[in-house]
Amino acid sequence: MPAIVPMRFAIAPSGFKESLDAEAVAEAIAAGVRRVVPGALIDMIPLVDGGEGSAKSLAAATGGKVVELTVDGPLGDAVPSHFAILGGAGPRTAVVEMAAAAGLRLVPRDFRDPGLTCTYGVGQLIRAALDARCERIIVGCGDSGTCDGGAGALRALGVRLLDADGSPVGRRGGAVLTSVATVDVSGVDPRLARTELLVACNPHNVLAGERGVARVFGPQKGASPEQVERLADAMEHWAALLARHSGVDLREVPGSGASGGLGAGLAGVLGGRLLPRFDVMLDHVDLDARLAMADLVITAEGAIDFQTPHGKVPAEVARRAKRYGRPVIALAGTIGQGARNTYEAGIDAFAGILAAPIELSEAMLHAGELITDATERSLRLILVGTSIARNGEPQEARQRARGRMTWIAGRAG
Amino acid sequence: MPAIVPMRFAIAPSGFKESLDAEAVAEAIAAGVRRVVPGALIDMIPLVDGGEGSAKSLAAATGGKVVELTVDGPLGDAVPSHFAILGGAGPRTAVVEMAAAAGLRLVPRDFRDPGLTCTYGVGQLIRAALDARCERIIVGCGDSGTCDGGAGALRALGVRLLDADGSPVGRRGGAVLTSVATVDVSGVDPRLARTELLVACNPHNVLAGERGVARVFGPQKGASPEQVERLADAMEHWAALLARHSGVDLREVPGSGASGGLGAGLAGVLGGRLLPRFDVMLDHVDLDARLAMADLVITAEGAIDFQTPHGKVPAEVARRAKRYGRPVIALAGTIGQGARNTYEAGIDAFAGILAAPIELSEAMLHAGELITDATERSLRLILVGTSIARNGEPQEARQRARGRMTWIAGRAG
Repeated sequence: MPAIVPMRFAIAPSGFKESLDAEAVAEAIAAGVRRVVPGALIDMIPLVDGGEGSAKSLAAATGGKVVELTVDGPLGDAVPSHFAILGGAGPRTAVVEMAAAAGLRLVPRDFRDPGLTCTYGVGQLIRAALDARCERIIVGCGDSGTCDGGAGALRALGVRLLDADGSPVGRRGGAVLTSVATVDVSGVDPRLARTELLVACNPHNVLAGERGVARVFGPQKGASPEQVERLADAMEHWAALLARHSGVDLREVPGSGASGGLGAGLAGVLGGRLLPRFDVMLDHVDLDARLAMADLVITAEGAIDFQTPHGKVPAEVARRAKRYGRPVIALAGTIGQGARNTYEAGIDAFAGILAAPIELSEAMLHAGELITDATERSLRLILVGTSIARNGEPQEARQRARGRMTWIAGRAG
Repeated sequence: MPAIVPMRFAIAPSGFKESLDAEAVAEAIAAGVRRVVPGALIDMIPLVDGGEGSAKSLAAATGGKVVELTVDGPLGDAVPSHFAILGGAGPRTAVVEMAAAAGLRLVPRDFRDPGLTCTYGVGQLIRAALDARCERIIVGCGDSGTCDGGAGALRALGVRLLDADGSPVGRRGGAVLTSVATVDVSGVDPRLARTELLVACNPHNVLAGERGVARVFGPQKGASPEQVERLADAMEHWAALLARHSGVDLREVPGSGASGGLGAGLAGVLGGRLLPRFDVMLDHVDLDARLAMADLVITAEGAIDFQTPHGKVPAEVARRAKRYGRPVIALAGTIGQGARNTYEAGIDAFAGILAAPIELSEAMLHAGELITDATERSLRLILVGTSIARNGEPQEARQRARGRMTWIAGRAG
């Protein structure tokens, strides 16, 4: 039996970067759903992808806690940061969100040079997690403002990067990598050897080659075309070095390019395991069974564009919902270039939230309200569809419009 | 039998002011429909409301012609203008679009003072239609930049407006009306007495009182709060004068406030008939029968807001489509305050066309493309609805998700 009206909704959005976290986005969508279907049965499944906001969300979702501390930010200044210690059973687990120490948001627009920004603070967060006696550390990648192959994080954990003369390379950032000749782990934090290190990566991101991280993400981190080429060279050099050091060529291993090559650095030097981020991040959610139960799945992300099918939340939700034949719509703060590719990723339809010409900053300020209104509009369109599939025939209506009555058969008397 | 998929589309949009005419909007919508339903049967019904673009559209739709001429614009400068002579049978009919001589678009933003702008050019167009031996003149109201009660148009046709001393009042615009004591028709163009004068009005617009034209439209024509009060007083004075002159109190007659009181002036001095604009403008279209035939009606307007239910194209389309139970969606360049009121006007759902933060001018430049993309998105949402109404049950999907197979009944062997 098909649903007479959609009553069961799974609301499984990402947060909107720099605007609303996933919980707030889910609430805003739910408010829009209730405007149209007041008695809707709503399953709220706010999702995180390892990027901005993930640590806090997972702490909240598992009844864990957030530990606050100050670290060296991507530009070397002290920045307030944090990591999560998850609640629940199992090994004591930390979630280190790399964006909390080296995220793009921490790099003012005028300083966005991924040749200089550094993941040192990420290493400091890992060290703090070790200090907190965590047995498992999950490093969430995403929303990074760096492209240093994880060199900074490694240095913070006692790894020495030496040049051809055997001197430590002094400078920070990705540009330094080309002068590194040897990776020296003699001084590495010994607790790392007995701690599980999981790196939650977008598997579409690889370290080097044509689709390497410098070329794909360098421009949005602020690199000029020349800088992109220099960074791509640095990543190739780094890949070769890691291959010599670890015996494994990480160049095109899925996730090796995560967060400007942080994945490769943690894997190739510290034995971190590169895992698809949703497998790690959604472990506590039972997502599939909940999506399968819905008449309609609503997901959302700040932007829907050509990158969406490459491992973003809406695409992951759609991939899973499609296993069970559930319809999926996505709401987007911004609809960008290539958004239509998401149809092939299993998103049946998507809608933007903007109502009128507006500046981005203004839209971000009112994102909640815009999401609620857009949800209402989208649901009303969907209900037009259910009514078309169920309602009367236009032929009859046409006859009424023409004023002709089809009594002929009944005119006997 | 319900439609299995919506295949028959009636596309009945308005033009988008200062951006695309109704034909171009219809084309853009049709392109979006075909992306989703390649074999769609599309009935194109571009609509005009008497405002900007109406004369040219009706000339094209009836195989008539457009006559170009120069008139005095709303600020007194010469402006290029035009009127239409319709094709087809019946009396020789002109369509004078008031916006072509006194539209808001002709008043630069810094000069928007409806106490000064003038409909003189509208009278010149009417005179030109008389010169062209038209037996019926339809004056299309809408998109005006004036609030002069039609005083300018009357003067251009030989009417003299005299002050208490019996001298013609010299100045232009609505502010002059309070000094008019007498309307002198001794010099009026004699051809007007034997010419049918139809004024196509939004019947929601009235000359005076609380919902009078000065208060409702003054602000968007550029009047300050003080100017609005002065104009409202001027309209009251004008109404009293016209009542003395014609014996009829036009203050709250439907359409009397059309185009800043042009309706009242033409009715109270020249005997123009105030008619609901869609009854006049859609005479050639057979709109009802065509809407009744559609699985889905798509309408559109530049803005959907609190004014939409008050006699705008999408509301009129919805009102007619609802007689025959046809679903109606509306696309909007901008979704403004009060847009949700349109649901009560019979619009089942609406959608904005904007994809990303953008300036109005940029959006107007790319309106066609934005409309096509938005149509595709909306239609995909509707198809999600048709699939929900028709597809399988989430319970089964859930069981698959949980990995339980319900073979129990089949396990006999």
